[in-house]
Amino acid sequence: MTAFRSPLSLHPYSDPHERIMARALRLASRGRHASPNPMVGCVLISPDGAVVGAGFHPRAGEPHAEVWALRSAAPGAARGATAYVTLEPCSHCGRTPPCSLALVEAGVSSVVIAMLDPDTRVSGRGVEILRNAGIDVTLGVLEREARELSAAYIKHRTTGLPWFVLKTAASLDGKIATRSGDSQWITSPPARRAVHRQLRDRCDAIVTGLGTVIADDPSLTTRLGARSGRNPWRIVVDSRGRTPLESRVVRQASVDGRTMIATTEQCPSEHRELFERAGCHILICSQDVEGRVSLPDLAARLGTRGDMIGVLIETGGQLAASALNSGIVDRWTAFLAPKVIGGDAAPGPIGGLGAAQMSDAQKLSTWKLRRCGPDIVIDARIW
Amino acid sequence: MTAFRSPLSLHPYSDPHERIMARALRLASRGRHASPNPMVGCVLISPDGAVVGAGFHPRAGEPHAEVWALRSAAPGAARGATAYVTLEPCSHCGRTPPCSLALVEAGVSSVVIAMLDPDTRVSGRGVEILRNAGIDVTLGVLEREARELSAAYIKHRTTGLPWFVLKTAASLDGKIATRSGDSQWITSPPARRAVHRQLRDRCDAIVTGLGTVIADDPSLTTRLGARSGRNPWRIVVDSRGRTPLESRVVRQASVDGRTMIATTEQCPSEHRELFERAGCHILICSQDVEGRVSLPDLAARLGTRGDMIGVLIETGGQLAASALNSGIVDRWTAFLAPKVIGGDAAPGPIGGLGAAQMSDAQKLSTWKLRRCGPDIVIDARIW
Repeated sequence: MTAFRSPLSLHPYSDPHERIMARALRLASRGRHASPNPMVGCVLISPDGAVVGAGFHPRAGEPHAEVWALRSAAPGAARGATAYVTLEPCSHCGRTPPCSLALVEAGVSSVVIAMLDPDTRVSGRGVEILRNAGIDVTLGVLEREARELSAAYIKHRTTGLPWFVLKTAASLDGKIATRSGDSQWITSPPARRAVHRQLRDRCDAIVTGLGTVIADDPSLTTRLGARSGRNPWRIVVDSRGRTPLESRVVRQASVDGRTMIATTEQCPSEHRELFERAGCHILICSQDVEGRVSLPDLAARLGTRGDMIGVLIETGGQLAASALNSGIVDRWTAFLAPKVIGGDAAPGPIGGLGAAQMSDAQKLSTWKLRRCGPDIVIDARIW
Repeated sequence: MTAFRSPLSLHPYSDPHERIMARALRLASRGRHASPNPMVGCVLISPDGAVVGAGFHPRAGEPHAEVWALRSAAPGAARGATAYVTLEPCSHCGRTPPCSLALVEAGVSSVVIAMLDPDTRVSGRGVEILRNAGIDVTLGVLEREARELSAAYIKHRTTGLPWFVLKTAASLDGKIATRSGDSQWITSPPARRAVHRQLRDRCDAIVTGLGTVIADDPSLTTRLGARSGRNPWRIVVDSRGRTPLESRVVRQASVDGRTMIATTEQCPSEHRELFERAGCHILICSQDVEGRVSLPDLAARLGTRGDMIGVLIETGGQLAASALNSGIVDRWTAFLAPKVIGGDAAPGPIGGLGAAQMSDAQKLSTWKLRRCGPDIVIDARIW
């Protein structure tokens, strides 16, 4: 899940350890389809300082970064080398053998690690294997950067919940549509491409609301032009099961089988059958006090599946407000377009009742700014 | 009026002419109280490349930049020097003798000028005086930057209208107050200080609406802490003359006499008398189709006065929308705070009816981003 990471800052690292780890982190970030596994990068440095191998984890089921790095090295070149790994090498047998053993067997003399693996099956045991084999282990080099890169993975492994990113697109005066509901398009083609490349292609699921499906009929697929993308799951929050069968999200279910209707017991069984016949999955969630899908329950259910680490929320003001209020949102990526829509009746990105007093307003912590074509992207962390 | 200029970019100029002119522009920008005169800077360079004098125009009534630069030079040091001036030296006798003559008399051998003076009393005649005296004149060095610095002056001299800057402060979700009207404070102390230092202290007048006076009772003075500020005119747009006499803007009139009620014939004469007795000025404007103050007429009347070159608009969503729609606004300085207010009923910075279709949305051209404490400032040009 690079989905929700920010690019590494470009400032040069003066410490040689950090310089090489920054390279490993850049490699790691290329594993944008690694989810549900973490993105990991590895660089092998010979005693005289030459890069003798490098690799990253491209996707679940394929070898881990350390294995790619060892494979890329000339025979025997890893012997006595130092391995820089962005995450503690694994100690357990999954679909691939443990990487800590692979490093031991290759004869590396030391390993520099950015952060321990929060996965309870590893969490220090990888380091133990290395140290028991007499390998010198250094921990915590560029740990902050590594944690940022792996924020979604860390959240999922430590809380069981997916990492949620709310994405909105508004005019500079904070409107997501005109008073008549026209919302196509607020942002520029480069910004819309960025949504596909940097958000949709890197998340495991996109959550939207019934209102957005009815108003805009989005397809919520990943369109990258010539390059092949990966369609995330499409999850419609629809308390009473009223998503139109002819909507694009439902019709897309017959193509890739990745549409899910997140609903409640209020959804009539005949609707469920129709959805299932159309290829959709049904997820029955508990209800909040107003009878709507409980978003914390939805988050917990998605987290339990194990294949949803990073989830994007692309929706209208009502569901966005509910998501923020329910506390499930980790980051808000707000696109702002250089235009003025205006109008007291035109909707904003966050609807609902809103704060009564200024002191009730939700505070955002760190935020990052960048330009995307003529538009601005503001990435804010929600605490 | 530096009010509405953007800081000079920091990239180093490779051309020596440009390097020196950039220095003259930085000097010019220190003349933040020069209005209604232009901000001008001047640097004198000896034939061997040394800076022998420099100056800027601090405020109307004081000598121009060229005179300060000549005065700062050692006796005779200006002879044979090159003068870099950000605006064509004047050719007319105002409150000070013409600067072009001063340069001739000082014996400079060449003059480098960023831009011609758009004032019809000068406009090439300053250059003519210099050339007729055998001085070598180069025109157009950093002209773009000089035009940006003098945008308000240029607009006023070429159209007779003031340069209007709309200033708004909103949460990231585009709300300027909560649903209950609470708006204190959205932005941080550094951002509020920036409004005083960079906007109010540098403009000639602040326009607000009756609604804002009633809702927030702002004082609209320039508060700079220990440093002395300059109170701009306070102009309340109030079609029917209903501004409360006990409001801060009216009470401030007895202190500095710089409060103006911009109204229409609908304002009862007894109200006019009460305002005038409180020290306020009355400006009767024509009415638009809805009986409100015609903003283009207000702009024309303010421009005609001659002392209002840069005008700030600090107001609520209704007047802001009217100002944008009427076409008087040149720049929009939008402060965004890292918080979420939310709420369908909470007001945005631009109210009114708004665009019906996305294609009707008003486009903003160039915009600049900067951080101000925890907040973001977006400076957009309106075309």
